[in-house]
Amino acid sequence: MSLFNFFNKQRTTAPAARERLQILLAHERAEIGQSDLVAVLREEILAVIARHVPINRDKVKVKMDRKDQMSTLEVDIELPQQAALLTAH
Amino acid sequence: MSLFNFFNKQRTTAPAARERLQILLAHERAEIGQSDLVAVLREEILAVIARHVPINRDKVKVKMDRKDQMSTLEVDIELPQQAALLTAH
Repeated sequence: MSLFNFFNKQRTTAPAARERLQILLAHERAEIGQSDLVAVLREEILAVIARHVPINRDKVKVKMDRKDQMSTLEVDIELPQQAALLTAH
Repeated sequence: MSLFNFFNKQRTTAPAARERLQILLAHERAEIGQSDLVAVLREEILAVIARHVPINRDKVKVKMDRKDQMSTLEVDIELPQQAALLTAH
């Protein structure tokens, strides 16, 4: 299944013209008990995004999950309409 | 379908005990032609990761895809065994 399908499946509401950024992160550990990279990266990745687009913290959904050998992070950010980049590119 | 299934489905080889980090990023634009956030974020997110774990650029697979209203980035990083975090946590 391609990434596009995964993200399109995620859309439960009618596809209103919203601007949206989704991040999925998975850390597969060779052994149980190793440090959890996902928890470490979470805030820094959000900070990188916030440097480029205005983010309203109320519109940021974060879901973290940790199993023995896999941790995952799902971040779903609804961006303001016409979210022009803060940094010129 | 949950995120775990998505990542487990991605595993084509036998589940050897490898340490792996996967990042999926999707930018859904309200209108065609808006700036592509995924391309902008790509290098900075890789830099955030490289601050925390030793990354061998040969073990980093990056796939980017851009359609009218959706851009996606898939990054698959095989981490060295026992990849201790560079930054103490």
